[in-house]
Amino acid sequence: MGSLGPYQRKHKVTVVGSGNWGCAIAKIVAENAASNPAIFEEKVEMWVFEEKVEISKTSQHYDPSSPLCQGPQNLTDVINQTHENIKYLPGITLPPNLHANPSLVDAVKDSTILVFNLPHQFIIKTCEQIKGKILPYARGISCIKGVDVNEEGIHLFSETIGKILGIYCGALSGANIASEVALEKWSESSIAYDPPHMDSKAPSPNRSPSGSTENLVQFEHKDVSGQLSRVKLQALPSDYPPVDHAVLKSLFHRPYFHIRVVSDVAGVSLGGALKNVVALAAGWVDGMGWGDNAKAAIMRVGLLEMVKFGEKFFGATINTRTFTEESAGVADLITSCSGGRNFRCAKLSIERKQPIGKIEETELNGQKLQGTLTAVEVNNFLKKQGLEDEFPLLTAVYRVLEGTMSVEDIPSYIER
Amino acid sequence: MGSLGPYQRKHKVTVVGSGNWGCAIAKIVAENAASNPAIFEEKVEMWVFEEKVEISKTSQHYDPSSPLCQGPQNLTDVINQTHENIKYLPGITLPPNLHANPSLVDAVKDSTILVFNLPHQFIIKTCEQIKGKILPYARGISCIKGVDVNEEGIHLFSETIGKILGIYCGALSGANIASEVALEKWSESSIAYDPPHMDSKAPSPNRSPSGSTENLVQFEHKDVSGQLSRVKLQALPSDYPPVDHAVLKSLFHRPYFHIRVVSDVAGVSLGGALKNVVALAAGWVDGMGWGDNAKAAIMRVGLLEMVKFGEKFFGATINTRTFTEESAGVADLITSCSGGRNFRCAKLSIERKQPIGKIEETELNGQKLQGTLTAVEVNNFLKKQGLEDEFPLLTAVYRVLEGTMSVEDIPSYIER
Repeated sequence: MGSLGPYQRKHKVTVVGSGNWGCAIAKIVAENAASNPAIFEEKVEMWVFEEKVEISKTSQHYDPSSPLCQGPQNLTDVINQTHENIKYLPGITLPPNLHANPSLVDAVKDSTILVFNLPHQFIIKTCEQIKGKILPYARGISCIKGVDVNEEGIHLFSETIGKILGIYCGALSGANIASEVALEKWSESSIAYDPPHMDSKAPSPNRSPSGSTENLVQFEHKDVSGQLSRVKLQALPSDYPPVDHAVLKSLFHRPYFHIRVVSDVAGVSLGGALKNVVALAAGWVDGMGWGDNAKAAIMRVGLLEMVKFGEKFFGATINTRTFTEESAGVADLITSCSGGRNFRCAKLSIERKQPIGKIEETELNGQKLQGTLTAVEVNNFLKKQGLEDEFPLLTAVYRVLEGTMSVEDIPSYIER
Repeated sequence: MGSLGPYQRKHKVTVVGSGNWGCAIAKIVAENAASNPAIFEEKVEMWVFEEKVEISKTSQHYDPSSPLCQGPQNLTDVINQTHENIKYLPGITLPPNLHANPSLVDAVKDSTILVFNLPHQFIIKTCEQIKGKILPYARGISCIKGVDVNEEGIHLFSETIGKILGIYCGALSGANIASEVALEKWSESSIAYDPPHMDSKAPSPNRSPSGSTENLVQFEHKDVSGQLSRVKLQALPSDYPPVDHAVLKSLFHRPYFHIRVVSDVAGVSLGGALKNVVALAAGWVDGMGWGDNAKAAIMRVGLLEMVKFGEKFFGATINTRTFTEESAGVADLITSCSGGRNFRCAKLSIERKQPIGKIEETELNGQKLQGTLTAVEVNNFLKKQGLEDEFPLLTAVYRVLEGTMSVEDIPSYIER
């Protein structure tokens, strides 16, 4: 990767989002940009939603003579000077080539690779702010876990991003607790990236120069509701290294963060959503004191229903082995059923004999668990299709949440 | 199941073995024999290796006036009078229709269904003792976990039993910690049963009477080394209910013990062996404090290698979905990597900075872990085939055990 090869230009990378998972990913991306100078520009931008923070007197960054320590400061200034996001990822040193940028539009300008990593309720608003202000041939990677399910169908966040911005967007998901990744504890993750054929062609040095708009393909996608999306996708100029599986691996893979790049965007995204519903059931069963056999049984049935859900609603566009072989599938399921917050809160709700809404209030400051939201959305969708009975575990979780089934009834209900 | 149907005879069932798992299974089988009187004889025999035990003064069974409490007694007498195996499954009441029998030959005599549940080092000797002394049309179920791997090939314990006795033998394996099953905590298990076609025929009332020896099929099996086994299998007389998936389910399924019957004997058996090797790696990684992401990554790679091992060495005779869908596969892997003894001892060996042999001495009274034995056997086999590199996790576990690789090297070694 040391040689510039046949390419005159390098990829500029921007991370959109700077929470704990956003910063952990930005750290990885900036480390790799610095160590792959033939492919990436060294400086990596990270968009930070600006807010005021104060460096506490106990902080290692506290220096009474520094202007940075005179009262509240901009979070971006603190990140750029201390190389630490003291609010959302304290204690972790970020690479010096990672630049915190409070301007969303400025951060994404001229970037060929956009990494989206922000809470999903902000996706649409954020994308609409940068629509038309990015390079038309940029490519995206969504690190947002899960999918958007409603009665009508299932939408991948990567598709939502791609549709709004008119670009191709893949997905990253895996068994990744942000704090462990930030501490460089070894883990794995999955990237799914499968753009229409134009991107996988070997770039020809005779192709039109950069910025050309003539190289377009109509990119079509039919979602589960039968709705057809059309995106006019512009080819990357040939003086850039093509954004392919190898380039994505060099951007995200670290010795402590092992990446496998696959083509199954739906599978990778779906795994990240459904495992949270399974984790609720695993937490209840664990809270009941039913032991490891029972918890393993719940996870086995959960994995089966994930595979079946994929087969049923995504058909040939999904590779069911994603669920059983990739980090975004079985490994993420295992992690989520070991110590994830859906698991923990469900377990607490049994131990304290409180409804899970009460646990959300006391343990999450009223924030909603992803698993409870997804369980309701998935059930609305299954009910509309008349298919509740075919997914007994997903259905049982919903019914326990709504109070029409008890945890004791789960084993016999899912047995059929 | 209340009607006798067209069958004049009932199955007599014997459990060969009476350790903690043997007794837990015998309890289930006896409960089901009692509640399915149309199919099974009520009395279930359990062969017990006779030894002397003494009822302690603190036991609920202690009665100074009882002859049973006058010094050491036969274990079988204690079981038959107290309905408890006070030595190997204390605290669990066994059904009154379960009869402990110290005579192996007497216990199996006239039984049509033999359930084998004893430590694997005793299988061959035990089978040789009853060879020719069982009904020639008996059928077996082996509850012995794992497979017998050596340089030459892989042999399923069920096949070993079948070959010695000249009967067909299936397998039971799953995410089952014996003590939890005995306490009737909910769990699942897999039975694999796939006899040659004769057994699945609907029995005809016009067929020859019981005991006939004319109804034979030559049952062939080619194992991984290419060795062909031939067993002359005798058809079950038509006045018995056929031993099929439904009958096996009525013998083993309980409200707290959910059974799925499949046809993949090799997959069910192999899962039970290889998961112990993976559990060692999971224990090491956990002992290193690498967190849940890392442990999930090990389990993911382990599951992949289990599938690959099955595909490679059993080809079309195995169903790889057994590993990803059945209790004997992914669920047993999860349980074993949560709290199984291979996992626990491996974790301790890191925490105490002691070789695992030392932990076996102090924690298991010198008993060997199944995982360490299997890791060595599997490695001998892979090495002979020149395939160590294709199974990096299985190979890494062996190398850590033999001291030529350190746990720190596992992530980069299995990455490829």
